[in-house]
Amino acid sequence: MRARDLVTPFPSVTLDTPVYEAARLLSAQRLPGLIVLDAHGLPLSILPGTQVLRLAVPDYCQEDPALARVVDEEHADRFLRSLAGRTVREALPRQARELPITDPDATVLELAALMARTHSPLVAVVDGARLVGAVTLQALMDWAVST
Amino acid sequence: MRARDLVTPFPSVTLDTPVYEAARLLSAQRLPGLIVLDAHGLPLSILPGTQVLRLAVPDYCQEDPALARVVDEEHADRFLRSLAGRTVREALPRQARELPITDPDATVLELAALMARTHSPLVAVVDGARLVGAVTLQALMDWAVST
Repeated sequence: MRARDLVTPFPSVTLDTPVYEAARLLSAQRLPGLIVLDAHGLPLSILPGTQVLRLAVPDYCQEDPALARVVDEEHADRFLRSLAGRTVREALPRQARELPITDPDATVLELAALMARTHSPLVAVVDGARLVGAVTLQALMDWAVST
Repeated sequence: MRARDLVTPFPSVTLDTPVYEAARLLSAQRLPGLIVLDAHGLPLSILPGTQVLRLAVPDYCQEDPALARVVDEEHADRFLRSLAGRTVREALPRQARELPITDPDATVLELAALMARTHSPLVAVVDGARLVGAVTLQALMDWAVST
């Protein structure tokens, strides 16, 4: 079993996609994350859903949970709905890190190692200069427990 | 909006649950992770799906992707199906870390900050000495983009 057998088409966004639109895509299609493409149509980053959410959280609340507690319910609601106006560019991690990207020949072991190491529930599959799609944790787990 | 409004019952496992059974639960119910309970029925850990997968990956492949590449397809397949015989105990992270656990009064901002900080797509909700369930990233995202 190789990446080419488990890969499925996967929606992508660009740096200029509004975060609100990205969040709607995650919600409506129940995606574990998003593939962010560069101007050449190749994966620039893989964005887990938790990191899209991060944009709605002020820095001081991310660092100190006690500070999130002092914000009242009304304002907390408003923060979470404040994703409008921002773009995916702002949701990217500040530091470069290993990206879960592989090629169609990758074995299930390579896919699992990549997901485990990068804590990513999806791996983008690139064939030469073309994005084929993604293998999700769900697809890999389904295969692993199938008889 | 508070945790009590977004929480749903969530399956749990114990340290002695076979990993294979945990993987089947993740697969069949399309869960983003698992809640591991202690002997008192309280959350001991929250285990993202990627970390359950980690158990099937030999250490040398986790550290060096090039080494995963040299394992042929047949053996790679076998590794992934080798989850049988291990228990959830072995899947827990070696180092203690902040757990995504909160109480029913938590606001959506606290939930989002917890998910973003711990990179966890689920937060366990505990009321006193009782596990109520979990708020998933999906539920929070659905709420954030609802009109």
